[in-house]
Amino acid sequence: QQESLIREGVSGFLVFDWQIQFADQKQEFNKRPTKIGRRSLSRSISQSSTDSYGSAASYTDSSDDETSPRDKQQKNSKGNGDFCIKNIKQADFGRREIEIAEQEMPALMALRKRAQGEKPLAGAKVVGCTHITAQTAVLMETLSALGAQCRWAACNIYSTQNEVAAALAEGGFSVFAWKGESEDDFWWCIDRCVNLEGWQPNMILDDGGDLTHWIYKKYPNMFKKIKGIVEESVTGVHRLYQLSKAGKLCVPAMNVNDSVTKQKFDNLYCCRESILDGLKRTTDVMFGGKQVVVCGYGEVGKGCCAALKAMGSIVYVTEIDPICALQACMDGFRLVKLNEVIRQVDIVITCTGNKNVVVREFLDRMKNGCIVCNMGHSNTEIDVASLRTPELTWERVRSQVDHVIWPDGKRIVLLAEGRLLNLSCSTVPTFVLSITATTQALALIELYNAPEGRYKQDVYLLPKKMDEYVASLHLPTFDAHLTELSDEQAKYLGLNKNGPFKPNYYR
Amino acid sequence: QQESLIREGVSGFLVFDWQIQFADQKQEFNKRPTKIGRRSLSRSISQSSTDSYGSAASYTDSSDDETSPRDKQQKNSKGNGDFCIKNIKQADFGRREIEIAEQEMPALMALRKRAQGEKPLAGAKVVGCTHITAQTAVLMETLSALGAQCRWAACNIYSTQNEVAAALAEGGFSVFAWKGESEDDFWWCIDRCVNLEGWQPNMILDDGGDLTHWIYKKYPNMFKKIKGIVEESVTGVHRLYQLSKAGKLCVPAMNVNDSVTKQKFDNLYCCRESILDGLKRTTDVMFGGKQVVVCGYGEVGKGCCAALKAMGSIVYVTEIDPICALQACMDGFRLVKLNEVIRQVDIVITCTGNKNVVVREFLDRMKNGCIVCNMGHSNTEIDVASLRTPELTWERVRSQVDHVIWPDGKRIVLLAEGRLLNLSCSTVPTFVLSITATTQALALIELYNAPEGRYKQDVYLLPKKMDEYVASLHLPTFDAHLTELSDEQAKYLGLNKNGPFKPNYYR
Amino acid sequence: QQESLIREGVSGFLVFDWQIQFADQKQEFNKRPTKIGRRSLSRSISQSSTDSYGSAASYTDSSDDETSPRDKQQKNSKGNGDFCIKNIKQADFGRREIEIAEQEMPALMALRKRAQGEKPLAGAKVVGCTHITAQTAVLMETLSALGAQCRWAACNIYSTQNEVAAALAEGGFSVFAWKGESEDDFWWCIDRCVNLEGWQPNMILDDGGDLTHWIYKKYPNMFKKIKGIVEESVTGVHRLYQLSKAGKLCVPAMNVNDSVTKQKFDNLYCCRESILDGLKRTTDVMFGGKQVVVCGYGEVGKGCCAALKAMGSIVYVTEIDPICALQACMDGFRLVKLNEVIRQVDIVITCTGNKNVVVREFLDRMKNGCIVCNMGHSNTEIDVASLRTPELTWERVRSQVDHVIWPDGKRIVLLAEGRLLNLSCSTVPTFVLSITATTQALALIELYNAPEGRYKQDVYLLPKKMDEYVASLHLPTFDAHLTELSDEQAKYLGLNKNGPFKPNYYR
Amino acid sequence: QQESLIREGVSGFLVFDWQIQFADQKQEFNKRPTKIGRRSLSRSISQSSTDSYGSAASYTDSSDDETSPRDKQQKNSKGNGDFCIKNIKQADFGRREIEIAEQEMPALMALRKRAQGEKPLAGAKVVGCTHITAQTAVLMETLSALGAQCRWAACNIYSTQNEVAAALAEGGFSVFAWKGESEDDFWWCIDRCVNLEGWQPNMILDDGGDLTHWIYKKYPNMFKKIKGIVEESVTGVHRLYQLSKAGKLCVPAMNVNDSVTKQKFDNLYCCRESILDGLKRTTDVMFGGKQVVVCGYGEVGKGCCAALKAMGSIVYVTEIDPICALQACMDGFRLVKLNEVIRQVDIVITCTGNKNVVVREFLDRMKNGCIVCNMGHSNTEIDVASLRTPELTWERVRSQVDHVIWPDGKRIVLLAEGRLLNLSCSTVPTFVLSITATTQALALIELYNAPEGRYKQDVYLLPKKMDEYVASLHLPTFDAHLTELSDEQAKYLGLNKNGPFKPNYYR
Repeated sequence: QQESLIREGVSGFLVFDWQIQFADQKQEFNKRPTKIGRRSLSRSISQSSTDSYGSAASYTDSSDDETSPRDKQQKNSKGNGDFCIKNIKQADFGRREIEIAEQEMPALMALRKRAQGEKPLAGAKVVGCTHITAQTAVLMETLSALGAQCRWAACNIYSTQNEVAAALAEGGFSVFAWKGESEDDFWWCIDRCVNLEGWQPNMILDDGGDLTHWIYKKYPNMFKKIKGIVEESVTGVHRLYQLSKAGKLCVPAMNVNDSVTKQKFDNLYCCRESILDGLKRTTDVMFGGKQVVVCGYGEVGKGCCAALKAMGSIVYVTEIDPICALQACMDGFRLVKLNEVIRQVDIVITCTGNKNVVVREFLDRMKNGCIVCNMGHSNTEIDVASLRTPELTWERVRSQVDHVIWPDGKRIVLLAEGRLLNLSCSTVPTFVLSITATTQALALIELYNAPEGRYKQDVYLLPKKMDEYVASLHLPTFDAHLTELSDEQAKYLGLNKNGPFKPNYYR
Repeated sequence: QQESLIREGVSGFLVFDWQIQFADQKQEFNKRPTKIGRRSLSRSISQSSTDSYGSAASYTDSSDDETSPRDKQQKNSKGNGDFCIKNIKQADFGRREIEIAEQEMPALMALRKRAQGEKPLAGAKVVGCTHITAQTAVLMETLSALGAQCRWAACNIYSTQNEVAAALAEGGFSVFAWKGESEDDFWWCIDRCVNLEGWQPNMILDDGGDLTHWIYKKYPNMFKKIKGIVEESVTGVHRLYQLSKAGKLCVPAMNVNDSVTKQKFDNLYCCRESILDGLKRTTDVMFGGKQVVVCGYGEVGKGCCAALKAMGSIVYVTEIDPICALQACMDGFRLVKLNEVIRQVDIVITCTGNKNVVVREFLDRMKNGCIVCNMGHSNTEIDVASLRTPELTWERVRSQVDHVIWPDGKRIVLLAEGRLLNLSCSTVPTFVLSITATTQALALIELYNAPEGRYKQDVYLLPKKMDEYVASLHLPTFDAHLTELSDEQAKYLGLNKNGPFKPNYYR
Repeated sequence: QQESLIREGVSGFLVFDWQIQFADQKQEFNKRPTKIGRRSLSRSISQSSTDSYGSAASYTDSSDDETSPRDKQQKNSKGNGDFCIKNIKQADFGRREIEIAEQEMPALMALRKRAQGEKPLAGAKVVGCTHITAQTAVLMETLSALGAQCRWAACNIYSTQNEVAAALAEGGFSVFAWKGESEDDFWWCIDRCVNLEGWQPNMILDDGGDLTHWIYKKYPNMFKKIKGIVEESVTGVHRLYQLSKAGKLCVPAMNVNDSVTKQKFDNLYCCRESILDGLKRTTDVMFGGKQVVVCGYGEVGKGCCAALKAMGSIVYVTEIDPICALQACMDGFRLVKLNEVIRQVDIVITCTGNKNVVVREFLDRMKNGCIVCNMGHSNTEIDVASLRTPELTWERVRSQVDHVIWPDGKRIVLLAEGRLLNLSCSTVPTFVLSITATTQALALIELYNAPEGRYKQDVYLLPKKMDEYVASLHLPTFDAHLTELSDEQAKYLGLNKNGPFKPNYYR
Repeated sequence: QQESLIREGVSGFLVFDWQIQFADQKQEFNKRPTKIGRRSLSRSISQSSTDSYGSAASYTDSSDDETSPRDKQQKNSKGNGDFCIKNIKQADFGRREIEIAEQEMPALMALRKRAQGEKPLAGAKVVGCTHITAQTAVLMETLSALGAQCRWAACNIYSTQNEVAAALAEGGFSVFAWKGESEDDFWWCIDRCVNLEGWQPNMILDDGGDLTHWIYKKYPNMFKKIKGIVEESVTGVHRLYQLSKAGKLCVPAMNVNDSVTKQKFDNLYCCRESILDGLKRTTDVMFGGKQVVVCGYGEVGKGCCAALKAMGSIVYVTEIDPICALQACMDGFRLVKLNEVIRQVDIVITCTGNKNVVVREFLDRMKNGCIVCNMGHSNTEIDVASLRTPELTWERVRSQVDHVIWPDGKRIVLLAEGRLLNLSCSTVPTFVLSITATTQALALIELYNAPEGRYKQDVYLLPKKMDEYVASLHLPTFDAHLTELSDEQAKYLGLNKNGPFKPNYYR
């Protein structure tokens, strides 16, 4: 099955069956900053929080070199100096981090193997702007193995793993990124990526839309040669839909944020693990017997509830949507309004995508020691600002953990100041990032190889078939064996034996 | 929240926001008999199997009156004789069954209460053709309370609960149905429903499409006054899409089979319970420690796997779709090909929607005592025909349970001859049927009240909002309290406070 | 590992290492009719309820022969007439039931195989008084294969499977039992077992103590030749402890009721499945979202709670013991007093071993449709008598299901009139009974072969090692592979490589 | 219920009903270093590992004062200098840690409240030797509130939380302990505890037996005034049983290690959470879909398996004991020998209490990236020594995480060098330690107040009733409401309304 999928892929990258304009969804994105895709936005934070745990971090932190990278003369061991990073000497350490990541990114490694025969990205000149982490490095080195030239900047001023950047520079990549850039540094780095005598990029890989924005603003003519944009974040996708709506999108763009596989992994499966991880690392709380209220029963809420129930917590759910509410009931959770349980619960978790779900009135009524955290959309769900009043005392007891103390001595335990718990206080497994990175690589290949006219100046979703292909590349990790349809069965079902196996709306 | 939803509903039935023509799905349905919706097709079987358990059944079975109902002079206690059923004396017993059903159908009862003020179906003349069960009776009496006149026939020759039919007739409904009709009886009953001097139906409620077919064939002119068709079964929906495609559909039709709520209830939640129930009632097998292979990890497979895992079985999964396969992995199931485990498993369950999933070759290799059953699509999944060979002995050991014995003495335990296990050997909770019946009622109201031109001669899905409304009517059963958006939150999310809360494709 | 265990067993049955007088436990038994062991008492009821489902039952029920078996001339096909049963013609049907049971009783079948070389019960003359079921038949035929002569009566007037009795009689066993004996018949059968010219039993296998009681009363001299009693039921064990305490026990007795394996299987694992089965067969209730209160969190309660939680119910627990209460908390259940939740729950389940746990006051406050049932000790837990008052109406809606109706129309659903749900309304898997039957066989072998003086006139528990041996004989069913200690490891742990591996009190 | 229990306790501490000499168990302990109780032995390590996460640790670590505490002149703010710690200035920080711990130790706080009326330890002079942590501080301050004078040393040279020691010294306690003592320091501190002019201890609270040993060796006459020893660790208990067996135990001793509550909490419930926590903090591994083998299915193994199964791992179990093996089967785990799965698993976890469970042969066959860790007994389970060979390369990638690299590049991930994962790499919730600390306090009260002659020179277990009392003191944390027996029910069950509710062997 996989054999044939892969073979199909080699040539098949050129043959996309479905073109989905997804008008309704665009409308969605224009209206509101949906929960969908938020994870890609913040992934870097997660990586940098990993830093503070792993040995890599301590290594970095001990660096006391205060000279700005921009002021340094930099060269790697081969004499190449077309990069700007913190410290090239950290390359060996970074290389090991990359090697560790490779083990959990089976799909990219499989793409590399296939690329020994052909180079679907031969001639591609990719400018990229993403978090610079070990996982990104595996992606970049895969793109390179597939034939692409890459120039890269960071999409976040804090998220760069300096050692990884060093390893990339040592390996010959033109990387412009370090941890702790100023805003000026940030745009300087992006510009260095794009603006090089004799270099005309033809593909953009963006995370947040800043790189795209910069080119629009400074080098609009570059778009004439650009074949497409691949964008991962919800923010970036939102910007693209707005450009498209305004008729200003001048190249095709691929939204890699909304594939089923990515959504399920990032939300349901990943949160099922990270809610436990985040709570333990910050509070060491025992889950057994604790009463918890989870606000919101979407994919994130479902993951949180399932994990906590399994650990022996008693879980209550709040919802606004009757369908999700009915699901919560059938899954064994009492559906309540927050005020019904706020006095009795030990832990409050928000995952609604909404704002002001936990307001001061609720915070006032929580019991002593109640833990409050957010797994949902940015930092709006808990009204943290309402706690910045004179009569309340804040006490930082651990990194990312504050005690907020009422005049009567009651204290609540606020995690990550209401920002995303799992990205602030735990880590995202490489295996999850692997799915996104693979989707990015395939999207680049598709846009780069698509015949003239297949893609208009619009925002596209990856077709179901590609989504299935990404999934299939991750199955060997689990030693999972897919069944292949017989000809007779395929005919009976009216399906192509190589998929797609489900309609595009299937979740 | 619910208050407002309900109020909104009263007038709001007239205001459908979204009109979904769902072209892709139609194409789907043309190609293959999908798993979607299959349950409604077979529900009657379930009801009749219920019969054989409950006391109602034994009552019925003891009836030794051999005269055909068509040959009897029938009158209820008020002298009304416009019906044809088995035995009007069974009315009291049937009334009790209806009352029991009412308790688990909260949404219809809520609709009745609202109808005390207004009658959204005043003037409606509904001809119906469905299974005649206690649940249907609750639906019919609700339609009546909403203002409709009803004439009804059975959509299946075996599924009628005679006592319920008697109670309906005694209550003044024109019912034409009994258990054990001949094919000639079947069409005679349908004709009696439709063809009455001075009666011109204006709505059709169908389950399977036979009633619609009969009117097309015999009384095509009737369609001039008919405002719409509500169809529940996959087969009937399939027929409607074909009519539509051929340009022959002459009134709007509503597909009530594919709403999220119905799908999730019928497949995931219902199968999670009925796989255990069906296996226990037929085999008394102990689940703990048993090795089970579940073929297919769609909603049905997910339900089966979750239940068996919870009961201590070791579950393997087979899949053709890499995305579902990856979900199975993440949920903790070994993904295998059937031949890898067929020798070792104690139970084989099919839920693929495919044909010939378990073929003779696999049956030959099963171990002694292996239980084989089907939770999927009709009776094609297990190649039962291949077991009808001279060297194999069949032994009926219980109702719905056959031992098939190999020459060497090995026996496998085949349930329901490969037909749907849960519908053949267990029961469907009334609460699940309540969701479908509510959706049918709302669809009738909508089509009946829609202003000219809102619905074309096409097949429509119920909009998300109605789906959410059905869900909301079932929440009070669980004493579940929905949270209402504040104005500020609704604005932030770009949502109407009364929903819909999700895009239509959300599952 | 098992090889050696088995070999060790052959001779090793003679070498009991531990002799446990268990004074504390005796004291326990004197004080109260503990929940421990209750299942054996009622097992027959289960078997007869099985009857009413399987085809065996209908066969039996169709028998309209009203002549008392005591008045019939009976002979099997070989001319032997030393038995008294319902109808020898049912032997073939009974044989098939026995063969089906053999497949789920792997340990007894393993003992038979070993007995081809030696006969550890050669010379044993066993009188037995147990339920006459297919599972008992497998035990009896195993004892016979091990060398014993057997005469058997039923310990319950309703529980005999007539077809199985016929098969045993046809096979040459002297069986005196039929379904529906009068009390006079009951003692007549027991007497026929014991009192035969030229027959002096030397072993007793009892279930309930009636056989033992009869011999004490009528033939006390027989005890001179009797080597021991094996007793399974809590009632019978209780009687033996009382005899022992009074100094009147004149032979050693083996309590097979209290082994770990039996307890865990009968209570935790079996109830985990049968609570679902019993509720479904009687009420078809949907578990998802239902609120349930389970009274008592011993092994039975733990099993019920785990199953219902897994099916999506919301479960509350009541307890008197703070340790079990803390376990309930850690397992994720709200610990409440019954009055806190009685108004809101959909299902009430008792498993306390106590009396009057659900009294009229609570029944009065239940909501309409609440289901009430008992999984605990006999029928004392729910105060059913308090419902037999004039203002309440009882309505039998199904076998084992009563609606009790209050003057205001509220009805509660009472199952099995408060008797044990799982034994009244579902079945006990043969695999569970296999464990008990194996323990009985081993206890007979041990007592029969024990050298003079090893066992005093007291009540003994089976040693841990035998318990482990029974477990090991059941592992092959699960294709489970035990690890064997290395010499070095055994020495390190201070254990014999063949066990016992745990102290006797380990649960 | 609790009200009465508490009142009963006040006087009831004097009335122990059961005296359990538990001869069999002593024998057990002589034979082997059982898994039982191991946790108390290593708790300190956990605490120190907590250090390295929390802010307390970094504070401590930044201390660059190299002078030995023994060489410093020390005084607290009241001028008291009878202590020896690292730095009295850290007292404020330590006080906050103690306050945080108090919130999770409800039972000790309840004891303190009761002590406002009476002082059951008035006149008690307790010498203690335990880990010096925030939890111990709560215990010490409780003993003080109950009337005792305390002098304390550390039982482990690394486990002292210096800030907590400072807070205790500032509060007037004579504490002799710091993090990083030399062995000479260790015994010097113990001696300073015991050997003070004019101080004659009358109670010993020991953890590991070193304090007891020191008094036996240096000040044997002290035992004349000592009323008893309370010992928590398995090692210390083992030593006491040996003394008892040799007839050299000259005062009564209480084994607080083997109470049900402590065992269940420390093993089942705590490991269920800490296996996930330990693996995440060290490796960030995703659990979903991973194949795991757990060696040993005792309480620890049961906890690990349940957690991993819930997180979507596929879990295999190895066992030597057929009863535990059968439990694993019934709980849904494949029972295998290690060699059957060693090539395919992603994670190997030992919890057998045995040695050399994972030997080099298995390590050689693991796949690349396999994670190996120990949750069982000390560091013997994995043969780590066998990995210290020249051809293997060790690489320390994080704290407590080593990659061991084979010549062909395969690497396994070894956690905590085979020491206990949860104590090395995660934390133990205060709530769990609360149970132990409460049991210690009650044991001290009982021994101190027992009338002459109640306790002989032997080792005693806490009676069931005390165990139940400890549990009851922890229920309010969960807002759990215990049901009280009616007089009639208590009589029926033959139980005292205040317990004990179960026989002593009940687990």
